[in-house]
Amino acid sequence: MKINVRKNVLSDNDQQALTNAQRLAGLGISGVNILASPGAGKTTFIVRLLQALPGELNNAVVEGDVASSIDTDRIIALGFAATQINTGGGCHLDASMVASALDKLTLRGPGFLFIENIGNLICPADFRLGESLRLVVASVPEGDDKPVKYPAIFRLADAVVLNKIDLLGHVEFTMDNFVAGVRAVNAAAPIFEVSARNVAGIDKVVEWLREAGKR
Amino acid sequence: MKINVRKNVLSDNDQQALTNAQRLAGLGISGVNILASPGAGKTTFIVRLLQALPGELNNAVVEGDVASSIDTDRIIALGFAATQINTGGGCHLDASMVASALDKLTLRGPGFLFIENIGNLICPADFRLGESLRLVVASVPEGDDKPVKYPAIFRLADAVVLNKIDLLGHVEFTMDNFVAGVRAVNAAAPIFEVSARNVAGIDKVVEWLREAGKR
Repeated sequence: MKINVRKNVLSDNDQQALTNAQRLAGLGISGVNILASPGAGKTTFIVRLLQALPGELNNAVVEGDVASSIDTDRIIALGFAATQINTGGGCHLDASMVASALDKLTLRGPGFLFIENIGNLICPADFRLGESLRLVVASVPEGDDKPVKYPAIFRLADAVVLNKIDLLGHVEFTMDNFVAGVRAVNAAAPIFEVSARNVAGIDKVVEWLREAGKR
Repeated sequence: MKINVRKNVLSDNDQQALTNAQRLAGLGISGVNILASPGAGKTTFIVRLLQALPGELNNAVVEGDVASSIDTDRIIALGFAATQINTGGGCHLDASMVASALDKLTLRGPGFLFIENIGNLICPADFRLGESLRLVVASVPEGDDKPVKYPAIFRLADAVVLNKIDLLGHVEFTMDNFVAGVRAVNAAAPIFEVSARNVAGIDKVVEWLREAGKR
């Protein structure tokens, strides 16, 4: 009984995700689902991408949070298009929430739509939103064992971003352990080392996004 | 329909949580539910509590993770009693998982049973496990806005532990913002500033636990 309920929910979600994907593709926009723990630095990372991408692209952001519009306010204040989804208590975005958010943005391509998912390494893995790319952001102070402890979300990543590399040396973190953990579940995803705060390593992610967005 | 299913699940869980609580109380053990983001330092914090608590107490640990037994192995290697729960993909522990874990430990009081929940600031808030105390562990590199973004879990905290204070000055974090965020949803919970890594501030938490455990 419980399984049936869950299956129906996922199936409806997949259908809506496909509709979102077609809508974005029709506009020449690549949707990028950004997945991470609370406090991994998703918003600062997205801001750095927006600032580094060429000015001729039309980019926008959908911000997911349980509560508050802190992140959306911050992105709009910097001059970028953004809209907020608050889930109340929900632990992930779903495709219908994103569909509603798309209605609130004046979208035109070519460009990227960054969708900042709820801070959570578990629930968001099960819900496609209509994205063409999935970026998992881990951060150095969370420790090098996160891929081993949360394998599902790292398995589904098109790229892994390791943020806060400016804190290497201040915390216990062994890069080889982290890379081995990712590789145990994901052979192909590039791993980018960045410090969003210090704008380090962002260019390589932008280069990858522009190539991956064309596929 | 969905609401009814959910209500039944919660009701079953509450019943099992009550059974767990009675079982622990009968043994003279205080259950402590430890809630936090991935990588907030829950395990190191628990290790420091175990090391700081008086030797005459009989303490044990239940470790919750989606996958792996890294944390349990670490605690057992240090000479403490521990057992692992792996949820597969589940984003929180529930009372029946904890009941099974209790069967695997040879428990006798007086002492504490620390239950490390899944790294997640959302789902675990809805599920009582049979604990008498709830400790929410936040960490400095996650940022000072976590109480505003995840209010439900901070609202239910009996105490809030701010870990990794050794990183203050290396990241953007304003203590007044953090405290105001906690106080907006929780007027009473003490806020302890600690560095589990450097064994700083642990004594005050131990003192509070010993007082609160008597109630």
